[in-house]
Amino acid sequence: MSPDRAPTAETLRSGNRRALARAITLIESTNAAAREAADELLAAVLPMTGQAIRLGVSGSPGAGKSTFIEALGLAAIAAGHRVAVLAIDPSSAVSGGSILGDKTRMERLSVDASAYIRPSPSSGSLGGVGEHTREAVLLCEAAGYDVVIVETVGVGQSEIAVAGMTDLFILLQLPNAGDDLQAMKRGIVECADLFVVNKADLDPVAADRAARQFESCGRAGSSARTVSALRGDGVAALWAEIEMRFREASTRGEIAERRRGQIRDALWASIRTGLMREFRAEPRVTAALAAALDDLETGRAAPGAAARGLLRLFRGGEDQ
Amino acid sequence: MSPDRAPTAETLRSGNRRALARAITLIESTNAAAREAADELLAAVLPMTGQAIRLGVSGSPGAGKSTFIEALGLAAIAAGHRVAVLAIDPSSAVSGGSILGDKTRMERLSVDASAYIRPSPSSGSLGGVGEHTREAVLLCEAAGYDVVIVETVGVGQSEIAVAGMTDLFILLQLPNAGDDLQAMKRGIVECADLFVVNKADLDPVAADRAARQFESCGRAGSSARTVSALRGDGVAALWAEIEMRFREASTRGEIAERRRGQIRDALWASIRTGLMREFRAEPRVTAALAAALDDLETGRAAPGAAARGLLRLFRGGEDQ
Repeated sequence: MSPDRAPTAETLRSGNRRALARAITLIESTNAAAREAADELLAAVLPMTGQAIRLGVSGSPGAGKSTFIEALGLAAIAAGHRVAVLAIDPSSAVSGGSILGDKTRMERLSVDASAYIRPSPSSGSLGGVGEHTREAVLLCEAAGYDVVIVETVGVGQSEIAVAGMTDLFILLQLPNAGDDLQAMKRGIVECADLFVVNKADLDPVAADRAARQFESCGRAGSSARTVSALRGDGVAALWAEIEMRFREASTRGEIAERRRGQIRDALWASIRTGLMREFRAEPRVTAALAAALDDLETGRAAPGAAARGLLRLFRGGEDQ
Repeated sequence: MSPDRAPTAETLRSGNRRALARAITLIESTNAAAREAADELLAAVLPMTGQAIRLGVSGSPGAGKSTFIEALGLAAIAAGHRVAVLAIDPSSAVSGGSILGDKTRMERLSVDASAYIRPSPSSGSLGGVGEHTREAVLLCEAAGYDVVIVETVGVGQSEIAVAGMTDLFILLQLPNAGDDLQAMKRGIVECADLFVVNKADLDPVAADRAARQFESCGRAGSSARTVSALRGDGVAALWAEIEMRFREASTRGEIAERRRGQIRDALWASIRTGLMREFRAEPRVTAALAAALDDLETGRAAPGAAARGLLRLFRGGEDQ
C-alpha cells in the first residue's frame, strides 16, 4: 500500500471498516515509507486506545476454536459490545495455509455488523507478526471495538506472544485430557489465565475432570470452565464471568500493571528484532558471515570470538 | 586476572590443573583486555578440543545430582577416562548460593587425580554463563579431559543452554513421578536425551514405572534407565551404555552434526547478547531511554515506534 492512501485517525475513529482493514495492511507493510506512515497513524490514534477487553484464545487443532470464538463473540455482542477478531498463525508462513483462510469459519460472526474479523497475515516472522498484531489491537480499539480477541494455534511460541498482548489468555481444551501433555511440554499451560474445556456435551464427566486437572496444574490464579460452544451451553455465563473478572482486575489496577509490563516487554522484543534485522542487513557483516561460519565449522574459531569479530564489523570497526 | 598472567596453550595442554583453573577464570572475566587474551587462548587451543564425551546433567533439587555425578564420574574414571565437571547455576546469581558451593559435595571424585571439578561462576547473566561454560568445556578438553559433565539445576532456561552444548543431556528424576509435571511445564522434558530415575532402591517398582512414563513422554529417540547412585547400582552399566551410544552416534556422524548446529546457535546467541549489551551501553540510547519509557507508560508512543526511535539513536542517526 502506498503511504498516501493511509487512512487518517479520523476515518478510523468513525468506525469505517475499510479504513480499519487498510490501516492494518499499512502496519503489516515492510516498506519504509509505509512504516513511517504507520507509526504516525499509531501515534495519532494512541489516545483513543486501551479501552477494550483484550482476550487471547488458543488451543490445539480440533479443540473447536472457530466455533468457540464465534459463540463467545456473539455472546459479547449480545451484551452490547463490538468485537474484533485477529489471528496470529505461525503455521501460515510455513505451510501456506492459514487458520482463518477458510471462508466458512465464523459464518454468523463474520456477517454481524458489530464484528470485524481479520485473517492472519500470510507471511513474516513470529516476532514481526507479534508486533503487527499488537499494533492491530490498538487500531481495532481506535475503530471503536471494545472487545478484541486474538486467536492463535497451539505450538508454544505464538501463545507466549499472544499472552503478552492480552488481558486474559484462554486455552481451549477437549474433554479427553490426553492432549494436555503436549501443551504442558510446550510451556503453553503456564501462559493460561483461563482453561476452557470445550465440547463438554460429548462427555460431561470427563470435561469436569479435565477442568479440575487444569485448575491444579495451571499457574497460580488460573481457573477452568466447561462449555459446549456448538450448543452454546455455558458461553453466555463465560462471557459474563470474563467481563466481571476484567472489571475487578481493572479496579485493582491489575490490568494497567499487566499492560505496563507487556509494553516494556514489547519494547525490548522490538529492539532485539530490530537489532538482529540491522545486523543481518549490514553489508560489512554479510560480506564476512560466510567466512566466519566456515571458520566455526572447521574449528578455526570459537563462537564467542567469531561473534565478537562480527559485532566489531557491525559497529564499523576494523576487520577482526 | 591480569591478561599477562594468562596461561599458555602449552601449560594447559600439559594437564596443569592450576593452569586450567586460571584459564577458566580468564574466560569468565568481563575485562576487555582479559577477554582478548581469552579469545587468543581459545583460538590456540581449539585444535586440541572436541575429543571429549560432553554430558549434560540436570534434575530438581533432591534428585541426587551430586551423588549421581560422583558415581558416574568414578565409573568413567574406572573405564580409563579423565573427567571434568562444570556447573551452570542460574540460582547463584540471584541467591548468592551455588549448587557446587558446598565443599562436601563429590568428596571422592574431587580428590581423584583423574578428575577436575569447577564450581559455578558466582555471577553473570545466563547468556554470559552459558557462553563461558561452553568455552570452559573447550578448555577442559584442551587440558586432556575426555569426559566433560556440565551440571545444572532444573529451572528450564539453563537446561536448554546445557542441552545446547552437550552431546547427551541426562535428566535425573526421582521414582515418584510427581515432579515430572513441573519439568514438563518448563519444557525441560523436551531437552532430555536420557532420563535416569535415581534412588531406584527406595521403590524399584515405582522407579520402573517412572522410567516407562518418561520413555513415553520424552521426545523421539530419548530413553530411560533406573539407577541407585548411592549404592552404585546400575551406574557402571549406564556409563558403558553412554560410551556405546556416543561411539555409535559418532560413527553415524550425528555427534558432528549436533555440534555443528550447536556452534551455529551459539554464534547467534552470542551476537544477540552482544548486540543488546552494546545497545544498552550506547550513551545516546541511555540518554533517551527514560523519556522513551515514560512515553510508553503514558500512552504517548507505541512500543514499535519507540523501539525504532531508539534503534536510530543507536546507529548514530538523528533523534526520532
